[in-house]
Amino acid sequence: MAIKYSFFNDYSEGAHPRILNVLGDTNLAQETGYGDDSLSNEAVRLIKQQLQAPHVDVHLVTGGTQANLVALAAMLKPYESVIAVQSAHINVHEAGAIEATGHKINAIEGADGKLTPASIRRTVAQHTDEHMVKPRVVFVSQATELGTVYAKAELEAIFATCKEAELYLYLDGARLGSAIASKASHLSFADLPHLTDMFYIGGTKNGALLGEALVIANPALRENFRFYLKQHGALLAKGRVLGGQFVALFKDGHYLDLARHANLLAARLSEGIAASGYRFLSPPTTNQIFPILPNAAIDRLREKYGFHVWAPADDGHSVIRLVTSWATKEKAVEEFLQDLPRA
Amino acid sequence: MAIKYSFFNDYSEGAHPRILNVLGDTNLAQETGYGDDSLSNEAVRLIKQQLQAPHVDVHLVTGGTQANLVALAAMLKPYESVIAVQSAHINVHEAGAIEATGHKINAIEGADGKLTPASIRRTVAQHTDEHMVKPRVVFVSQATELGTVYAKAELEAIFATCKEAELYLYLDGARLGSAIASKASHLSFADLPHLTDMFYIGGTKNGALLGEALVIANPALRENFRFYLKQHGALLAKGRVLGGQFVALFKDGHYLDLARHANLLAARLSEGIAASGYRFLSPPTTNQIFPILPNAAIDRLREKYGFHVWAPADDGHSVIRLVTSWATKEKAVEEFLQDLPRA
Amino acid sequence: MAIKYSFFNDYSEGAHPRILNVLGDTNLAQETGYGDDSLSNEAVRLIKQQLQAPHVDVHLVTGGTQANLVALAAMLKPYESVIAVQSAHINVHEAGAIEATGHKINAIEGADGKLTPASIRRTVAQHTDEHMVKPRVVFVSQATELGTVYAKAELEAIFATCKEAELYLYLDGARLGSAIASKASHLSFADLPHLTDMFYIGGTKNGALLGEALVIANPALRENFRFYLKQHGALLAKGRVLGGQFVALFKDGHYLDLARHANLLAARLSEGIAASGYRFLSPPTTNQIFPILPNAAIDRLREKYGFHVWAPADDGHSVIRLVTSWATKEKAVEEFLQDLPRA
Amino acid sequence: MAIKYSFFNDYSEGAHPRILNVLGDTNLAQETGYGDDSLSNEAVRLIKQQLQAPHVDVHLVTGGTQANLVALAAMLKPYESVIAVQSAHINVHEAGAIEATGHKINAIEGADGKLTPASIRRTVAQHTDEHMVKPRVVFVSQATELGTVYAKAELEAIFATCKEAELYLYLDGARLGSAIASKASHLSFADLPHLTDMFYIGGTKNGALLGEALVIANPALRENFRFYLKQHGALLAKGRVLGGQFVALFKDGHYLDLARHANLLAARLSEGIAASGYRFLSPPTTNQIFPILPNAAIDRLREKYGFHVWAPADDGHSVIRLVTSWATKEKAVEEFLQDLPRA
Repeated sequence: MAIKYSFFNDYSEGAHPRILNVLGDTNLAQETGYGDDSLSNEAVRLIKQQLQAPHVDVHLVTGGTQANLVALAAMLKPYESVIAVQSAHINVHEAGAIEATGHKINAIEGADGKLTPASIRRTVAQHTDEHMVKPRVVFVSQATELGTVYAKAELEAIFATCKEAELYLYLDGARLGSAIASKASHLSFADLPHLTDMFYIGGTKNGALLGEALVIANPALRENFRFYLKQHGALLAKGRVLGGQFVALFKDGHYLDLARHANLLAARLSEGIAASGYRFLSPPTTNQIFPILPNAAIDRLREKYGFHVWAPADDGHSVIRLVTSWATKEKAVEEFLQDLPRA
Repeated sequence: MAIKYSFFNDYSEGAHPRILNVLGDTNLAQETGYGDDSLSNEAVRLIKQQLQAPHVDVHLVTGGTQANLVALAAMLKPYESVIAVQSAHINVHEAGAIEATGHKINAIEGADGKLTPASIRRTVAQHTDEHMVKPRVVFVSQATELGTVYAKAELEAIFATCKEAELYLYLDGARLGSAIASKASHLSFADLPHLTDMFYIGGTKNGALLGEALVIANPALRENFRFYLKQHGALLAKGRVLGGQFVALFKDGHYLDLARHANLLAARLSEGIAASGYRFLSPPTTNQIFPILPNAAIDRLREKYGFHVWAPADDGHSVIRLVTSWATKEKAVEEFLQDLPRA
Repeated sequence: MAIKYSFFNDYSEGAHPRILNVLGDTNLAQETGYGDDSLSNEAVRLIKQQLQAPHVDVHLVTGGTQANLVALAAMLKPYESVIAVQSAHINVHEAGAIEATGHKINAIEGADGKLTPASIRRTVAQHTDEHMVKPRVVFVSQATELGTVYAKAELEAIFATCKEAELYLYLDGARLGSAIASKASHLSFADLPHLTDMFYIGGTKNGALLGEALVIANPALRENFRFYLKQHGALLAKGRVLGGQFVALFKDGHYLDLARHANLLAARLSEGIAASGYRFLSPPTTNQIFPILPNAAIDRLREKYGFHVWAPADDGHSVIRLVTSWATKEKAVEEFLQDLPRA
Repeated sequence: MAIKYSFFNDYSEGAHPRILNVLGDTNLAQETGYGDDSLSNEAVRLIKQQLQAPHVDVHLVTGGTQANLVALAAMLKPYESVIAVQSAHINVHEAGAIEATGHKINAIEGADGKLTPASIRRTVAQHTDEHMVKPRVVFVSQATELGTVYAKAELEAIFATCKEAELYLYLDGARLGSAIASKASHLSFADLPHLTDMFYIGGTKNGALLGEALVIANPALRENFRFYLKQHGALLAKGRVLGGQFVALFKDGHYLDLARHANLLAARLSEGIAASGYRFLSPPTTNQIFPILPNAAIDRLREKYGFHVWAPADDGHSVIRLVTSWATKEKAVEEFLQDLPRA
């Protein structure tokens, strides 16, 4: 029997239909290349409006690894490093992209996938002279790789720590929509320009075919940024492809609507799983949840559902990862819960 | 009065409608990420079929600079260099992307934007020991930045020179369709795996929203290639976006049909311009042509048409660049020729 | 009162007088540049003889960071990484030199500053696909940053693990003399070409003004190595300066004599310190020892002796580092022990 | 018959005896490591005094390629480039070291190995947007690779051009002594901090065993410079080795005395060669001269003298390079001239 539904990730489907509509409707109009087209300009306007931040710079790129490597290349001098939690995407899942641009990642232990002001301060204090790298950027993911979020107060504390220690704060928002839509974050879009130096708003995992919007909040980081984009192959000739998608995502608050849908179905999944008597690796708050299930149940579920077996847990159990998206169907969630045996 | 039609480049429009149709028709099916989806696999199959080369490797990336930097990063050791003509895209228009991956470009003079076996041999001979870089790749564009093409016999001679000198030949095919469709090249798709070590087939400038297909003809270059893609942010989570487009382009020979249209309209333009008594910077053979016109005529034409003023020519004249594409309308060409005064 | 003697490191003095004699005696003879001089050639011959390895390649460079960055640049492809213990010199004390050549360090926990076969295997097993770097080199220091050594059997086990996992083993021998001269290692020079792929023999910390001898044991790593040297500024025009020093060091087994002196005086220090009732952070086996002393005693000792206060220990105590060298005087050791109060 | 004397280069001998004396006299004193020793500090003081520039920063490194790559790494952002003449050492003879730090060299044609304000302005004007690199540094050698010098007025014009165009001027002074000692330059040490942003004073080619003194004249370039040194393996543990040598070179104006000797003997050679009826590739003004001699004469001279055959000239003649140094003997010059047949 074939797999009926995949909870493997939030990029299994194509784009939200509204996005395809925008691309179709504007397809034959001639536009200027490399991101100076009317769609990209409108996307930037809508994003600034959503952020309530008329003075930020916004650049559209194709993917998360590209966003991260361009951003860090622009923020770091050759001897400077970036502090990140060990499980960070840049530390584990970008094939050494950051090091390939010449920079060390100071990878430190975290709890629930998160850094703390104390861990940042300790790392800075360990770097005392020119025999070592000089930490200059703090990297956080919102939501994290473990599906957790930084509450607004946590981000405020980290940002304050960064400013004391003359560090930039960069936020990887591959799943920013889910984080903002999560009740655990108490965060709004308008907070981000005040709590980071640079961040990106993920499109790929929230309904776009591809595309992430890099936002430069700190004016010191704006200069000549497009050179970094071009040098890393991140300037699309038909920038309109990214522009059109972000127009569709940021019109009428659509972006957060899509994220809320993903969170809602993840919440249903986690409530149902909890009701069946199971625990979680980390508190379920966004569109990624990590239940701990009996291996026998996992084997049966895998016959019908796609998901990642994350790690072994105690004897006879494993952690799995279930991811929902803007496209997840309620029916799929209901069936999964029905197919899950009670603990 | 606003510009009626832009001959500025071949990426002013969106995608050929067939491409949007494929993306739309397959949009909601769940697919595996990062290029292992059914659309990408089908695209690779169709491309190999078109190339009559079952044993090549094909990787889909988003743009030309990205294709070039990934390919050269994979082909060159740290002390090795790439030989290119001074006007080459990698030498002038990629913001130092190749140097940013650590490699020197040996930029040498060319004629009509092209390298010759003699110029390659001379450059190799100048590099004698470890105080200098060691040339290892020859970079050619087909078509070139000046709209010219390498005839098949020229490519054969260059490839033979490369093999004698233990060099790889890499071909930038941003406008490969137009080159193959050109009568001047006497080249077919099936020739390319036998005449290069690696090349890419440009999608962006021949009807795609974005996307280029890197083809690895030399088996020695295949190993672990996806690491290079990932490290440079060139692996899209939704690889299906690239796959679907190349399926549409390579079904039923569509790719060359689009290129033929572009070439046909460029030929009409150049015939009309020649009939009006004007010369060209380089022989018009592809979808980029470079007529030399009086400055007064240029000024008037610019009121209605978009194009690049390439360089000043003799007194009172300048070279302009006109580019046609799969989307260029016959009417636009006719009007342009009517608006062009006789010499 | 000024400091009478510094145990701060093993590079406080200039060169062993024999070295200055060789440089003086050969000073005015005209020699070929860049390492192809008669002194360098003789040094290479003597080193190969000491290693009983006629087929290795030997290159002389100026310092340890330079040796490490050149070696790793030559051993690693862009997506490959090096496994090292967290306290490794390349991970902490080289200002990000390895990352600046584009490579990630997989920094893992160690015991007594050492890697184990199990920790290497675990790290390799965690790297499963092209989203991650691919470990390719294992980096060990002999002696380690904590003054400990790998016993021959330990190195054999690590090297076997490397070969199973298709990893190169690279050994940083900044203090190789002290390690070989240590009874704890059971290692001879002749073992090294059979137990590593590449290593360097430290000159700077064992009597030279400057200079380390990189030895390439694995023939696969030899090709075009001098390009890496030149590209990183590691080819001295007057290579004779390095050659002459290694001639002096490797004539008549002088190198190990110097190391034995350093170890002997370190052993006297550690025996005296132990006799006074103190413990050590790690077992004292080479020319670096790490006694744990009362803070009050440390403060008094610092008035007369130079040394590094390494880390706080339990309450009222700290770890200090004492380093001896070829130049350390017995009198200095005796006085230090006399000035040390009993526990 | 063996070669009696080599005019192959200015690094064939060891060090001037005064240098060995300083190293010997100070050999056993314990000093702080990594360049903060009393010898290095005294060297810096003497260099600043010679430059009449108390506010510059001075860093001692081991060689010219190292000086250049560290300096350019510190001056350039990732997308910035350095303008140099095609024959420049960084463009031809450093194995791609500058590109390996990520930067493009804009190599342009020169006359007599020199850049001009016009050629610099033209290059800057060609770089118009983020699709290209952004020139940021101008690189000149004084003396040049062709033995010529920039006259003070030429340097003033170039520096003014740089300041207008917001470029840094970096001067490679591998043979700075010979340039200053040349009557053609009208330049003094005290001019350099006012006419460059950074430069280095070559030691290796003017009497040192090894060592170059990097001088940072522009305060904007000073910050954290030692990180760049460490990261590129340019911080010697026994920095005293470099310090002691520059103390010997800069005491009592010794440095220029050595350069004057080299120039004097080069002038004797060129006067004698001219008197014998021969011409030169470029006007002989420093310690490198490039006479054009009959091939038959060259063949005979090569039996007794070492020198580089630079390039073929008109039929039957070739350009050779003769280099003198602080160590060149008058007798060798006299013999060479006697052995040279008249034209």
